Amino acid sequence: MPRQATESPKSRRTLQASKTAAKMLRPGRTEVRPHRFCLAYSITGTFMTQSTPRVADHPAHPQFLSRWSPRAYANDEISEQELLTILEAARWAPSSYNSQPWRFVFARRGTPHWTKLLGLLNEFNRSWAENASALVIVLSKTTFAPPGSTEEVAMPTHSFDAGSAWGYLALQASLSGWHAHGMAGFDKEKTRTELGVPANFAIEAAVAIGKIGDKAMLPEGLRSKEEPSPRLPLQALVSEGTFKG
Amino acid sequence: MPRQATESPKSRRTLQASKTAAKMLRPGRTEVRPHRFCLAYSITGTFMTQSTPRVADHPAHPQFLSRWSPRAYANDEISEQELLTILEAARWAPSSYNSQPWRFVFARRGTPHWTKLLGLLNEFNRSWAENASALVIVLSKTTFAPPGSTEEVAMPTHSFDAGSAWGYLALQASLSGWHAHGMAGFDKEKTRTELGVPANFAIEAAVAIGKIGDKAMLPEGLRSKEEPSPRLPLQALVSEGTFKG
Ligand SMILES: Cc1cc2nc3c(=O)[nH]c(=O)nc-3n(C[C@H](O)[C@H](O)[C@H](O)COP(=O)(O)O)c2cc1C
Ligand SMILES: Cc1cc2nc3c(=O)[nH]c(=O)nc-3n(C[C@H](O)[C@H](O)[C@H](O)COP(=O)(O)O)c2cc1C
Repeated sequence: MPRQATESPKSRRTLQASKTAAKMLRPGRTEVRPHRFCLAYSITGTFMTQSTPRVADHPAHPQFLSRWSPRAYANDEISEQELLTILEAARWAPSSYNSQPWRFVFARRGTPHWTKLLGLLNEFNRSWAENASALVIVLSKTTFAPPGSTEEVAMPTHSFDAGSAWGYLALQASLSGWHAHGMAGFDKEKTRTELGVPANFAIEAAVAIGKIGDKAMLPEGLRSKEEPSPRLPLQALVSEGTFKG
Repeated sequence: MPRQATESPKSRRTLQASKTAAKMLRPGRTEVRPHRFCLAYSITGTFMTQSTPRVADHPAHPQFLSRWSPRAYANDEISEQELLTILEAARWAPSSYNSQPWRFVFARRGTPHWTKLLGLLNEFNRSWAENASALVIVLSKTTFAPPGSTEEVAMPTHSFDAGSAWGYLALQASLSGWHAHGMAGFDKEKTRTELGVPANFAIEAAVAIGKIGDKAMLPEGLRSKEEPSPRLPLQALVSEGTFKG
């Protein structure tokens, strides 16, 4: 995984935002704890590679900074009820024509389907995701019947809409004390065959859900990456009126 | 917009979930208010077309049910700081290789770029979005340079990843007391030309952000739709081990 250098200049706004974040994150106000101290203490406005470095440029809700994707999972079992609560958040995502193109195939650790879904991942992802509690394949329906019609036509926003559903899933996992880690590294052809996915559904991503484990169990190369990743500065992503890059 | 009939049978689990939601939604626990009463009062587990009908099948955080897409906007101005806070949430979305493919071009009501962005929408969307406070075009970078390389290759998850960023944007808008409404109905060719979007960026969606206005201002046909929409039952979206439709 790349660690972009995102050294945004230390601005008054950044300092302000991190103070606000620190305030928003005082005990009793956050729902997610793992990296609270980082937010409160990283007031330089720069990202430091080794020290869990998330600072908001603007005071968004801290839940968005608290969500992250670990690889050291703790091997727990997850109940069906807990998993469905995580998927429930995805259900309420917005979508074009309210078409709700997202679909989810899951397997929980300790159930007969676990090995099948684990076997879809590439070797690297399998090496850490085998300690997760649930695996989910995210699919999207590429066609839909427009209002007042029964004929299916192409739905151009199926991946975009499934992405927002996955975003809500990941956030709910984090709010529920679990973590979700998206994966593109899996065999899509095998997934289509083994799960029986019809041609008008796209295979979007795999997800490993689990509780955080001891990162000492990871190989050296992954251990140092076991922390929330940085982001490009907001100003690199946003522009007024005209595209700027 | 279609109103799917999603009359899931009234199950013990649904009742349980709606009781939990009602409890989660008592004053002092929610951050989003507009449709609180609906959640608290809709304990039948069915969706009613006319009466703001959201009931969770499982107790996900109520913020996901409180977010919705109005069309009656109140014509307010939004400060750049408020808009950037909404976009900040998008910045922290997960993405494949942390490639962060999302980009946002915005215009605020009362600024020189407003008319240009409004002019990209189709006539229907313009008719209501002209009362919004900000318009945002969501773009995604379709290529990226893999770790250790400087050569750009295709990034298959660009739309999916931009979708999760948009989902966080919409949720932050709702948490901040604003609302965001996604739109596919706009002229993408014109957008590419007028905003100067290069060929390796995809044009994903437009978004209207504003404060809720009086729905009496909407034409009759839209007025009755001015409420949170229903969803398919979770069991129609999720299956264990094998795809089921
Ligand atoms: C669609 C998608 C595919 C991903 N694929 C992989 C993967 O195959 N293996 C992996 O270890 N991480 C994968 N990731 C995790 C990303 O690297 C991670 O989300 C990103 O670095 C941002 O870090 P954060 O989620 O901790 O904020 C993927 C994430 C997404 C959203
Ligand atoms: C990608 C996308 C495109 C959309 N396009 C339009 C549109 O062009 N016009 C419109 O009025 N609503 C549009 N919508 C709004 C959807 O109809 C709405 O999100 C859906 O019915 C779910 O309702 P909710 O967002 O209130 O939960 C769009 C939503 C998304 C996510």
